[in-house]
Amino acid sequence: MPGSAVVAAETVGRVSLYRVLLSGLQQAGIKGVFSHQLSTSAGVSAAQVRRDIITLGYSGSPQHGYDVAELIESIDNFLDAPDGQNVALVGVGNLGRAVASYFAGRRPKLRLVALFDIDPEKSGRVICGVRCYPQEKITEVVRSERVSIVILGVPAPAAQAVADACVAGGARGILNFAPVALRVPPGVYVENLDMARSLEKVAYFARKAGG
Amino acid sequence: MPGSAVVAAETVGRVSLYRVLLSGLQQAGIKGVFSHQLSTSAGVSAAQVRRDIITLGYSGSPQHGYDVAELIESIDNFLDAPDGQNVALVGVGNLGRAVASYFAGRRPKLRLVALFDIDPEKSGRVICGVRCYPQEKITEVVRSERVSIVILGVPAPAAQAVADACVAGGARGILNFAPVALRVPPGVYVENLDMARSLEKVAYFARKAGG
Repeated sequence: MPGSAVVAAETVGRVSLYRVLLSGLQQAGIKGVFSHQLSTSAGVSAAQVRRDIITLGYSGSPQHGYDVAELIESIDNFLDAPDGQNVALVGVGNLGRAVASYFAGRRPKLRLVALFDIDPEKSGRVICGVRCYPQEKITEVVRSERVSIVILGVPAPAAQAVADACVAGGARGILNFAPVALRVPPGVYVENLDMARSLEKVAYFARKAGG
Repeated sequence: MPGSAVVAAETVGRVSLYRVLLSGLQQAGIKGVFSHQLSTSAGVSAAQVRRDIITLGYSGSPQHGYDVAELIESIDNFLDAPDGQNVALVGVGNLGRAVASYFAGRRPKLRLVALFDIDPEKSGRVICGVRCYPQEKITEVVRSERVSIVILGVPAPAAQAVADACVAGGARGILNFAPVALRVPPGVYVENLDMARSLEKVAYFARKAGG
């Protein structure tokens, strides 16, 4: 039973990428795929792809190729909660809107159920089909809406207090766009996604390459 | 001379984060900082902070704290090209706009000089103060505008062709938001930033933690 084993974050990331690639194949009408084809698109070795697929508990044969639809179903069972998970987004700026619009219909198992913003012009409104609340309501609404995942799109100085309020309401996962290391209790998972930091890495290495 | 040594991507990422944190301190009127203070905010050890600061070539004394303004200047010299670098953005959707608006005045050494979009409604216009070109012009404009860094905000199936066109024009760094592994020639640096993948990681571990 793969769900009971300890799985590394990197494995989950790769499996998520395979699903995107497999969905693309399925949309193109392709029914079978070999590990080496997935490995090229995913940028990992074919052996890695086969190991990851074993982790999923998928029993298809690598010799004759994997069935695309069956493999997608195995990944769905591995990644998705049967009843789905509720998501909240704190900070409805440009980035927050980009993230919110990403959800529209695309991820049935991840439901965006609440937005929060410090701006009273935004809270009280419905944005991208989702109600926006004032930030003081975070703990209360995270609890009442059974939010397990929070996307933090707030500025760095506000991030820790917002994270604390989310965790107090019962959130167990945070996707953090703020350039700051959050302190959270054990059992809460934080993934940092710092666009400025990534861009500066690219700029640095582009400069070194360019001479 | 730190610029001549091989520096790991992780080091560059941390140094970029220190600059954000130091700028926050400077705005708050704080003039001196100890490594342990930076380490708490950055989520790394104080020894790591001190090693990174040595990599910068900064000669301040860790015993008496670092001078915030001097340390920022050292990081500027380390991270930024003296004459700045030109950036282009391909794909002007919600995410692209979020990235473009991030640039507005905030990063004087990284100049957003061109946008590209496949939609003829967008190309030809000026968006967030920057001209948008049709995607067929990528190689030509990347070359003429001396773009070294490209931000890819296009869908996965289009990403490789767009990356090829950018590299052909002389781009040497790519920040890739598309969920696909790009193939690029040696000397071109790619940093992947896959929001969906990060979110699925959070969802997975939030579920495991939540039971």
